[in-house]
Amino acid sequence: MGFLRNAWYPAAWDKDVTDGTVAIRIIDHPIVLFRDEQGQVKALFDACPHRFAPLSRGKVRDGRLVCGYHGLEFGGSGACLRNPHGKGAVSSALAVRSYPVAQRYGMLWVWMGEPAQAEETKLPVLPLFDEPDQTWVYGQLDVNANYELVIDNLLDLTHVEFLHPFLASPGNSERTTFRARQDGNQVNAFYDVVNEPITGLFRLLWEGAEDFANLKAYMHWQAPANLSLQTGMSLHETVQADDPRINIMHLLVPQSEDMTRYFWAAGRNKARESQEVSGMLHYGTQNAFVNEDEPMIAAVRSRMRSNDLLAHKPALLPIDEAAIRARRILKGMIDKEQHLLAD
Amino acid sequence: MGFLRNAWYPAAWDKDVTDGTVAIRIIDHPIVLFRDEQGQVKALFDACPHRFAPLSRGKVRDGRLVCGYHGLEFGGSGACLRNPHGKGAVSSALAVRSYPVAQRYGMLWVWMGEPAQAEETKLPVLPLFDEPDQTWVYGQLDVNANYELVIDNLLDLTHVEFLHPFLASPGNSERTTFRARQDGNQVNAFYDVVNEPITGLFRLLWEGAEDFANLKAYMHWQAPANLSLQTGMSLHETVQADDPRINIMHLLVPQSEDMTRYFWAAGRNKARESQEVSGMLHYGTQNAFVNEDEPMIAAVRSRMRSNDLLAHKPALLPIDEAAIRARRILKGMIDKEQHLLAD
Amino acid sequence: MGFLRNAWYPAAWDKDVTDGTVAIRIIDHPIVLFRDEQGQVKALFDACPHRFAPLSRGKVRDGRLVCGYHGLEFGGSGACLRNPHGKGAVSSALAVRSYPVAQRYGMLWVWMGEPAQAEETKLPVLPLFDEPDQTWVYGQLDVNANYELVIDNLLDLTHVEFLHPFLASPGNSERTTFRARQDGNQVNAFYDVVNEPITGLFRLLWEGAEDFANLKAYMHWQAPANLSLQTGMSLHETVQADDPRINIMHLLVPQSEDMTRYFWAAGRNKARESQEVSGMLHYGTQNAFVNEDEPMIAAVRSRMRSNDLLAHKPALLPIDEAAIRARRILKGMIDKEQHLLAD
Repeated sequence: MGFLRNAWYPAAWDKDVTDGTVAIRIIDHPIVLFRDEQGQVKALFDACPHRFAPLSRGKVRDGRLVCGYHGLEFGGSGACLRNPHGKGAVSSALAVRSYPVAQRYGMLWVWMGEPAQAEETKLPVLPLFDEPDQTWVYGQLDVNANYELVIDNLLDLTHVEFLHPFLASPGNSERTTFRARQDGNQVNAFYDVVNEPITGLFRLLWEGAEDFANLKAYMHWQAPANLSLQTGMSLHETVQADDPRINIMHLLVPQSEDMTRYFWAAGRNKARESQEVSGMLHYGTQNAFVNEDEPMIAAVRSRMRSNDLLAHKPALLPIDEAAIRARRILKGMIDKEQHLLAD
Repeated sequence: MGFLRNAWYPAAWDKDVTDGTVAIRIIDHPIVLFRDEQGQVKALFDACPHRFAPLSRGKVRDGRLVCGYHGLEFGGSGACLRNPHGKGAVSSALAVRSYPVAQRYGMLWVWMGEPAQAEETKLPVLPLFDEPDQTWVYGQLDVNANYELVIDNLLDLTHVEFLHPFLASPGNSERTTFRARQDGNQVNAFYDVVNEPITGLFRLLWEGAEDFANLKAYMHWQAPANLSLQTGMSLHETVQADDPRINIMHLLVPQSEDMTRYFWAAGRNKARESQEVSGMLHYGTQNAFVNEDEPMIAAVRSRMRSNDLLAHKPALLPIDEAAIRARRILKGMIDKEQHLLAD
Repeated sequence: MGFLRNAWYPAAWDKDVTDGTVAIRIIDHPIVLFRDEQGQVKALFDACPHRFAPLSRGKVRDGRLVCGYHGLEFGGSGACLRNPHGKGAVSSALAVRSYPVAQRYGMLWVWMGEPAQAEETKLPVLPLFDEPDQTWVYGQLDVNANYELVIDNLLDLTHVEFLHPFLASPGNSERTTFRARQDGNQVNAFYDVVNEPITGLFRLLWEGAEDFANLKAYMHWQAPANLSLQTGMSLHETVQADDPRINIMHLLVPQSEDMTRYFWAAGRNKARESQEVSGMLHYGTQNAFVNEDEPMIAAVRSRMRSNDLLAHKPALLPIDEAAIRARRILKGMIDKEQHLLAD
């Protein structure tokens, strides 16, 4: 059904764009990121207009992107600033498409739609990223599947007991109370469990001698594919500010119909200075995504003839409510955008 | 031209289905095998009806197949027996297709056609497997080619001299008398050689001091793709009961148009207790199939634009008679079945 | 747009066809090379007419090519000379297509068009290969791209400064004077630089204490894809006979639309007896082609939807003149040939 175009898509962690190029495909556009002379990150179409060499194979010199094939130099606006050959003539045909870039939450976001509509007010609002008492670790991976299957996975956390033994205890599913709620175009999936064994993950942060506590895991989705998980364990009825809390952000970008780049960040409010806990949280999260989620999602894809899940008539369960709502909202937004484009 | 559907196809050696799942593709259906609480092997379509996760990625618990994604549990009939989430509602839409299974000759056979026609009387009859004086070794491999090219290979053993130096002596082909005979829907290819050097294979079993003996190799094919080879060497005109005899069974299953799973078993009536001979027979057979037959058959496939061999106008020789007969019989059976299905 | 058929294509270095078979694909024909009883190299279609086994998987015995599957034997004319089975009947249907072969410049050339037109006068004329004072090293590689992209690469040597740091000095491009000239159906690209730092490559041959000299690099292209580079450095205005001179021959053959075999030879007139210089020249050339040119050309291909470069509207520069001329000449020759074939 195509992709939503008028949206900010995550392209790279800001810290990962240093003095070279970073290449990524976003909704089937090859994109190269680099820093200009002011240190601002710029995004260009990743093919030289001369001979189509990927500009990401070149290098950055004095804030210009130098093509690695014949040395044409481009500025952040996409204009060709230098042709080192012959009389050095530079025509406007040598310009390459540029894409608006914004920075928020340590992430670089690229606007894939009409440049005139690229307003920063449209950037995703992810309050969990703003919590002042969190220490973060960051990662990324690629999933060999359509991004909607990754969203499905995240909006149905009942898979955790079965796919992630480190993150949930046996029998967790039947003890869980699940609610889904749509707030405008945001979809929320709430999982509450009373008196649950403290999981391996929370054991990293738990300071007391208890073996059981109440667990909550609240996942929030915004279009096209930004999700944030708020989770905590507490001896109280609701999780308190000084209870151990973990926030996991999932920023997804469809590279193509069948390949998704998955950026994640995990924050915690306990053991904040511990390099060991940072390392274990990074390892555990990356391991769960790469070795448990990704193979399962790719295997699901292998059983489908297309990415149109509903055409395959899945036997939906109540636990699918959040994921199905998100699919409908996204489809509505894409259909509307394509309708407008067709007018 | 499609596959024969109303047939028992080999799916796994019985000994290989233990306490986990075994996955195989049969005529393009993904199938999962597992044992129920009574130890009976069951075959289900290998995709959960909920979200299409391959059930073979799950585990078996108390004779039930537990989906590795969201924990739905299925019995041998394909019915969903438990939904661990929420109120645990289970609808009939959660059932997964089951396939009849039978056990014979140490092999598990799955019926891919109309379940009502899955009679055990239709199982292949392979008398060589019933000979009481044989000790067997077993193996399996995958061939990157259509199963009919593997049948061609087996029904034309004149390739042995050229492809398998351990199994035939130089000049064997011109000393060989070949006859083909069709008995009903069975095709037989008979190779007889008088006073042939004892081959490397038979040297493993030969007890005398002779260097030459009469060699026979009789291959039998039954649709869709079960072949049995009866071979022996003797100082007599015909092979006697106490001459060294080797039976090699070839049970093929088309996984897809271009991938064949090849189960084999090799039996012998001499050196029956020798672990060393068992090991050499297993190694030699597996090696010949994996390193000599498979690359050649896949290379043949690479020279064809499709799997329709006759459309490529091969220059057929008398040695092709058995293989061509088998192709015609199989095509006739498939055409007839598709005609009936279309009515 | 298809390939030029009536042409001699390079197939293998003569030294590389010894006592076995050599396989190559030429304009999508699989070809096998072998030596007959007189030691003459013969080229046959690389599929046995019986069952389509690649003949290159067989062996050569007494100047005959013996199929590795069922042992049919073929002579250099493609006729089947022996069927080792049964009565040994050999029909004319067993003949395999043969292709004219010629030897020149240490290369074996195969004629892919009408055999009647396979005249040796049509072999490429590459005078640099005939220079008497050159010692040669030889190599080959495969490029994952259409051969015209490889021609483009070679006819625009302005890429050298950016892609090959060993072969040019920084700033070389803006010091270079470039001229293109078409002589009949030959295209020439001339690069002259005055007072250039002696490159890493020429430092291998330079005998004086100077750091700067005049550099020339003249590339010549003939259809379909034979290129020769004449390069030298000199303290004089033009390169003299006893100045260090390097000739690099590039003989390309399209294996398929997206795969090119690239034969190269590099000759020098200095340090001719030095094994060390031979080794460095071989390593440096092979390394530049495999690790610098090939990945860039394949990356360019990945940015194109088809091999029709001009349909992608590249922003052409004056430096593209030679490559565009060659593309036009080649297209004209192919169009003319296809027009004649269609008549």
